[in-house]
Amino acid sequence: MTGTDRLARIEARLQSLEDERDITRLILSYGPLVDSGDADGVAGLWTDDGFYDVDTLRMDGRAQIAAMVRSAPHRAWIEGGCAHLSGPPHVVVDGDRAVAVCHSLLVVHGDGGFRVQRATANRWDLCRTSDGWKVAERTGRVLDGREVSPALLHAGVRAER
Amino acid sequence: MTGTDRLARIEARLQSLEDERDITRLILSYGPLVDSGDADGVAGLWTDDGFYDVDTLRMDGRAQIAAMVRSAPHRAWIEGGCAHLSGPPHVVVDGDRAVAVCHSLLVVHGDGGFRVQRATANRWDLCRTSDGWKVAERTGRVLDGREVSPALLHAGVRAER
Amino acid sequence: MTGTDRLARIEARLQSLEDERDITRLILSYGPLVDSGDADGVAGLWTDDGFYDVDTLRMDGRAQIAAMVRSAPHRAWIEGGCAHLSGPPHVVVDGDRAVAVCHSLLVVHGDGGFRVQRATANRWDLCRTSDGWKVAERTGRVLDGREVSPALLHAGVRAER
Repeated sequence: MTGTDRLARIEARLQSLEDERDITRLILSYGPLVDSGDADGVAGLWTDDGFYDVDTLRMDGRAQIAAMVRSAPHRAWIEGGCAHLSGPPHVVVDGDRAVAVCHSLLVVHGDGGFRVQRATANRWDLCRTSDGWKVAERTGRVLDGREVSPALLHAGVRAER
Repeated sequence: MTGTDRLARIEARLQSLEDERDITRLILSYGPLVDSGDADGVAGLWTDDGFYDVDTLRMDGRAQIAAMVRSAPHRAWIEGGCAHLSGPPHVVVDGDRAVAVCHSLLVVHGDGGFRVQRATANRWDLCRTSDGWKVAERTGRVLDGREVSPALLHAGVRAER
Repeated sequence: MTGTDRLARIEARLQSLEDERDITRLILSYGPLVDSGDADGVAGLWTDDGFYDVDTLRMDGRAQIAAMVRSAPHRAWIEGGCAHLSGPPHVVVDGDRAVAVCHSLLVVHGDGGFRVQRATANRWDLCRTSDGWKVAERTGRVLDGREVSPALLHAGVRAER
């Protein structure tokens, strides 16, 4: 391998690690932004026409995602005390596309302590844009025994449909 | 330092980051695979003769690990709704060996919500194989006050026995 | 770009990834060390004059942090069974300073299972020292509905004050 080829190979490996770092950081910014009610900040994680599909609520585009964050039910979670905790994401990058999966917990404050209101299987489909990595699709399914939820994790960890 | 030495040093640093990335990804694939009942996928994270020792159940080799995933008790967790959530792993690589520790939670669905069925201290001993990083040993101990559980975390975070 | 410039650029990118790795590993060592009551190990994560401010308890310097770990209330958590689980940290490095945020859960053992005793918003301000990255300031605020807690996450994820 020539010196130039060797440098190019090194730069490609670095780029791959940086892509995973950027995607992980993007996903991990969701919790702090949604816990603090930053509707535009949350929506800005998605592409213009990205969607967020969570069980019975499907949000198409940034405006609908921002509206969820501003909604009375979401405000009630914040006012009562909540943590949208993400498990560490498993990320697989393929060029300008990536698939990540993680568990998440909605932990809410109640009498004398906290309870796990919801445990969710999450799949994130991301794409590289001129403004960095963005979420094209996020699908969340509650882990209450329905078969679709573990199936979502299984396909996602293999970066399959 | 010559240009060649400098390149070799860079490549070694990259390899170290890639090893940690690969190990983290391996550990983070456990939850999605076990939640979805992929017995062969779970067992394939281990070396042929690796073991998984969790409190009173010790599984030696891939066949016993796969049998646990296929067992009626494990199927019952999945059918009722569960999340095997891993905390982010603390990873220390030393050549072709590595030690990782993490907390994990078994969160299960119940009446009107979810509960933390179990909080576990985990130590993973991993090795580099011709097929990538694999788990040689995983030990899990429930954090119910028994002294062995925090001791496992303490030794593991220092990569000590 | 000359070959020398290109190498220097590569080394700077590597350094950035290594800094984030080191900071993540530092933060993730807190849980195992505090769960196992290693008072000096916990205190050693901070700078000599670092502080740890958690709701009504403010600890200034390593001696006060170590005293908390050795205190009867903390010993009682360990003896009863507990997990100081950290969510994955969101880390932003700026030269020799860094800001990280994460959720954390204090999960404690009780009758027939575990409960989430506390969900906390954490901000870590870190600095590079001759002994590696250390915690200069850590602030934790319980997510029970008080406004300061999500505000802490929001400022931290943007690395703002």
